[in-house]
Amino acid sequence: MGDKKIIPNIDFVNIENVYPEINGARYHVKRTIGDIFNVEADIFSHGHDVLKAKLLYRKKGDSNWDETAMELIENDRWHGAFLLEENAFYEYTIFAWRDPFLTWVQDTFKKYINRQNITDDLLEGKSIIEKVIPETNKNDKNRLIEIIEVFDQSLNLNKLDKLENTEPSTGSPLLENVIFGEEITLLMDKYPDRSSCGKYDKVLTVFVNRREAEFSTWYEMWHRSQGKTKGKSANFKDMENRLKEIHEMGFNVIYLPPIHPVGITNRKGPNNSLICPHGSPGSIFAIGNKHGGHMTIESSLGNMEDFCRFEKASRKYGMEIALDLAIQSSPDHPWVKEHPQWFNIRPDGSIKYAENPPKKYEDIYPINFDTEDKEGLWLEILKIVRFWMSKGVRIFRVDNPHTKPILFWEWLIKKVHKTDPDIIFLAEAFTRPKVMKALGKIGFTQSYTYFTWRNFKQELIDYFNELINTDVVEYLWGNLFTNTPDILPQVLQDAPGSAFKIRATLAATLSSIWGIYNGFELCEGNPIPGKEEYLDSEKYEYKVWDWNRPGNIKDFIKRINLIRKNEIALQKYRCLKFYKTDNDNILFYVKNTEDYNNIILVIVNLDPYHIQESYVYVPVDEFGIKHDETYQVHNLLNNERFYWQGKRNFVSLDPNKEPAHIFRLQKLSHKEQDFDYFY
Amino acid sequence: MGDKKIIPNIDFVNIENVYPEINGARYHVKRTIGDIFNVEADIFSHGHDVLKAKLLYRKKGDSNWDETAMELIENDRWHGAFLLEENAFYEYTIFAWRDPFLTWVQDTFKKYINRQNITDDLLEGKSIIEKVIPETNKNDKNRLIEIIEVFDQSLNLNKLDKLENTEPSTGSPLLENVIFGEEITLLMDKYPDRSSCGKYDKVLTVFVNRREAEFSTWYEMWHRSQGKTKGKSANFKDMENRLKEIHEMGFNVIYLPPIHPVGITNRKGPNNSLICPHGSPGSIFAIGNKHGGHMTIESSLGNMEDFCRFEKASRKYGMEIALDLAIQSSPDHPWVKEHPQWFNIRPDGSIKYAENPPKKYEDIYPINFDTEDKEGLWLEILKIVRFWMSKGVRIFRVDNPHTKPILFWEWLIKKVHKTDPDIIFLAEAFTRPKVMKALGKIGFTQSYTYFTWRNFKQELIDYFNELINTDVVEYLWGNLFTNTPDILPQVLQDAPGSAFKIRATLAATLSSIWGIYNGFELCEGNPIPGKEEYLDSEKYEYKVWDWNRPGNIKDFIKRINLIRKNEIALQKYRCLKFYKTDNDNILFYVKNTEDYNNIILVIVNLDPYHIQESYVYVPVDEFGIKHDETYQVHNLLNNERFYWQGKRNFVSLDPNKEPAHIFRLQKLSHKEQDFDYFY
Repeated sequence: MGDKKIIPNIDFVNIENVYPEINGARYHVKRTIGDIFNVEADIFSHGHDVLKAKLLYRKKGDSNWDETAMELIENDRWHGAFLLEENAFYEYTIFAWRDPFLTWVQDTFKKYINRQNITDDLLEGKSIIEKVIPETNKNDKNRLIEIIEVFDQSLNLNKLDKLENTEPSTGSPLLENVIFGEEITLLMDKYPDRSSCGKYDKVLTVFVNRREAEFSTWYEMWHRSQGKTKGKSANFKDMENRLKEIHEMGFNVIYLPPIHPVGITNRKGPNNSLICPHGSPGSIFAIGNKHGGHMTIESSLGNMEDFCRFEKASRKYGMEIALDLAIQSSPDHPWVKEHPQWFNIRPDGSIKYAENPPKKYEDIYPINFDTEDKEGLWLEILKIVRFWMSKGVRIFRVDNPHTKPILFWEWLIKKVHKTDPDIIFLAEAFTRPKVMKALGKIGFTQSYTYFTWRNFKQELIDYFNELINTDVVEYLWGNLFTNTPDILPQVLQDAPGSAFKIRATLAATLSSIWGIYNGFELCEGNPIPGKEEYLDSEKYEYKVWDWNRPGNIKDFIKRINLIRKNEIALQKYRCLKFYKTDNDNILFYVKNTEDYNNIILVIVNLDPYHIQESYVYVPVDEFGIKHDETYQVHNLLNNERFYWQGKRNFVSLDPNKEPAHIFRLQKLSHKEQDFDYFY
Repeated sequence: MGDKKIIPNIDFVNIENVYPEINGARYHVKRTIGDIFNVEADIFSHGHDVLKAKLLYRKKGDSNWDETAMELIENDRWHGAFLLEENAFYEYTIFAWRDPFLTWVQDTFKKYINRQNITDDLLEGKSIIEKVIPETNKNDKNRLIEIIEVFDQSLNLNKLDKLENTEPSTGSPLLENVIFGEEITLLMDKYPDRSSCGKYDKVLTVFVNRREAEFSTWYEMWHRSQGKTKGKSANFKDMENRLKEIHEMGFNVIYLPPIHPVGITNRKGPNNSLICPHGSPGSIFAIGNKHGGHMTIESSLGNMEDFCRFEKASRKYGMEIALDLAIQSSPDHPWVKEHPQWFNIRPDGSIKYAENPPKKYEDIYPINFDTEDKEGLWLEILKIVRFWMSKGVRIFRVDNPHTKPILFWEWLIKKVHKTDPDIIFLAEAFTRPKVMKALGKIGFTQSYTYFTWRNFKQELIDYFNELINTDVVEYLWGNLFTNTPDILPQVLQDAPGSAFKIRATLAATLSSIWGIYNGFELCEGNPIPGKEEYLDSEKYEYKVWDWNRPGNIKDFIKRINLIRKNEIALQKYRCLKFYKTDNDNILFYVKNTEDYNNIILVIVNLDPYHIQESYVYVPVDEFGIKHDETYQVHNLLNNERFYWQGKRNFVSLDPNKEPAHIFRLQKLSHKEQDFDYFY
């Protein structure tokens, strides 16, 4: 025929539909140190041969693979798992093969229990074993030789049966214990014949984050709000004075907006006015002036030494700094002179300021990522990140990443994580859903979400099911901010404290990562009329606050964060299930550890104004509780305890007291059967 | 920094989640000649630039791509389509780019309608146009130069506004018609700047079948059943005598089981008995004896010339032959001597017969696909297929493909389709779901399904939703057989004619491809007690039938097949939707053409014994019928017509008359508005 090499060099075992896998392994998935990493795949082959499969894994860069056995779940779906021990990239893939010895055992045993003569089969089995003997170690070899003798004995018996044409002897302990026993299977498993096999055609990657990537509590602290003198900025020392209080509320990330010099040209006045009175600080997002740019500190705040002192002070409280990374400049940024090609040049040679028609930002120049000098620009931004890393910053909140090339972020984050896998990047991408998701895929650790605009029952259920109960959970982790300097949501405008408590409860328990922007704890809710923006925002002026203002909910926030600290289920992002209630104002969801040792029921009255009541339907079957069994729910918010029974139970939530129950479910353990002496 | 080539050479437009795409483009999808091929994808980029996207396609082997514009649906999801004109492989992929001119139009127009000064923007737009002028043809160049003059006029106006600091002039017809008009957009679209772009990283494939792959009606005709003399085989002449009748019932594929010489050694007697009386024909699946193997014809049937005459006779009736491809042999097949290495050799040198413990098939040798001589074996099977192709056979029904390497079939079918894309392969893979699906993916045109074991309402809905309303439809097309020589389903055992009519109706209308095994039309249902098998099966003996036996449903089958021939909606595989009824015995589904010009409502009483009644809920909104509108449903089975109104309508189905309605829905068109003179 001429074409001798006709057989394609591919696999005789199919390995498909591996989970998790994002966009055909184009992107990695995310996990946290200490997680058990579960992998599933469809694994199958033609015929009825017994398959074996291994999950292969290694820390990226290691040359050797570790391996762990995969087990069949059902319908050709297999599962394997391994422990993620380090803050690093891991690789994984799958190998499977048709196992001739196990196939022989399966087929021969079927004939044996059907009392068919197995003389020929014993000969075959023997030859399979004899084939591996040369590869075995001494002990195994001796044992296999002994086992072959058993085969020979059985063969003699079977031949006799065959000769005499009698029904074969069954129930032989020799056969069942030795030939079909576990020992020979385990022995042969050490020397598998993997010649008819399949290999998954991709190597997949999981990035293992440090703990704080999945569990942290953010406080957005604007220096402009931390002073005590009207019209004057706070400095790092003033800010340090507030750390104890923030720490006591239970926060562990202090997120600072840009702390860099602010531009002079076209500086904006209060409420983004074009008229800037003397002494107005301007927008902190108009970064850079003659003193420096992204690697310089605004002088009214202090100097680099002051920053480092502040950073260390935070650490003492177990808190760390998240720094804003806003890639744009004021017209006075040194880049404008040094790298004019990084900006958008108009035909008349001038530089374009930022616009989002009809809005104009005359005090800000956006960066032109289509610049010819991409290398220079990209490396400069990397340099900024590395600079602050060297100053102790290990978390970056990235401003508007969706207006820069997605590819650029992928490059930047990969570069950083290669040497410093502990760095956390939060994407502030309020944009279209698929762009938001793409930024999660390419490496951002956490993302802002649409949470701010999800307030009612069904929209909360739909959105969080999408985030957490689909494969979105593999790449996008939502950091739920109740408010931001740019968003004062309608539900919080001129709203009672109960509204703030509702939003805090949701943020803190729907996700393991949540945050507030300073002022939230004071129930500040004064909007620019008709907009979702704060009136007299510190984006353009200094503020002085009474941090103990009446009506504040600092104690409530402290309580919520304490509950999060104590209950492991609330520290895991990827567990959340919604359950039925009879009232559209009452939302009920459960977070639990995989072993169900910690089960938290959250029941929230979404109506900040009125008492709402409902039956809630507890998934007792899932928890291993009988339908007539009594268990305890302990409200961690106020220490109340209830005995509940079975599935259907009643709640009444008065927003003027507490708008939510956060129950820890406890089975009643004081039964006589639980004590040793019972048995 | 040393590393100058830092920027990865990938795309600035993301193209993801392309549909259809099977296992990351590892497999091709299926369509039929004349289909419009719809492709969707997520296409997005950073920022707010306007994107354009093209769907590229070509017949495989062509060097140039055709292209067609894709349109945004919503939420970054895009759609494009092209016509599949030939029975061939087509390739498709996607290209998209950020369009600078359209982006300029979008942004400038926003400012313009907000009455902002656009002097700088006009300059920019002008420079974008000027940049493309060198590439344009003469006419376009002249027109663009004219348009630039309009820009200049507008610029003068705008500069004036700017100088005088007055609000810019709006509503200028010059601007709206020329600068923001359609003409310039279309002109610039001919010379797009595609420098910031993205290309899908895969080239996908669709295999376009001939019409009969998607729409055909199969009659499984066993020669052992076609004779008139007890204990004697029919020959091709006898079989030819039956073609008219089969044609009249509306079948267009005559599927023949193996027609090859049958082995002598260990030949089986009636009902698979080990004792074979003289004159017993043996199992036709014990292929091969001293006269030949897979390329030879059993002498009692006739010779090759007789076969060819039979094949031609079928063609005259518009029918074609499907041949069985059963890769196995009797101990007397020439292969046993010529290629002993293709079989499973026991340690004692003997060849293993087929077993499925505890079942034994002493008359059949399976082929060992793990043979060292894979090349020889694979090429021999390809040779068999090509041999029968040369005899006019263009359809192969493949016996037990799931016991041979999946990879082998992929190779075989690809080889055949490369030169003969009209060949249809039907996979008889009664095996685990994922293996069945894998065979569809690698190239089998059609597949047997689990239809035989889906009899009740919810299981039918679930199964056919899985087959047709998920991506399974892209690669597995179910040929619904009501029965096979191996399967006499429980519902047909000793059952009334109504049961046979129900199963025929379901098979013929749930799928566009269905078939029966001869005897079904006679309502033959005599089982081996306790099994789903026929008693006294012709698998081991000759049969003589009265093809006009009382109680036969030939007229019903004829009617059903005629309906299929007339109603286009029933000829398309990929349209099927289930709708609500109030009775668990009444199944209601709709098949319609994409343009809704042909709408078929099928309502089946699944209970063969009793009258069942129900309301059925017609999706009138989908059909463009108002809730108070009256329309006609015309029962194509018995010509009855009903006026129905709105959504909810009543049916009563007596299985002793007809167990189903097959309605064609007709809007009542004789309204005065439908005539020209009305207007």
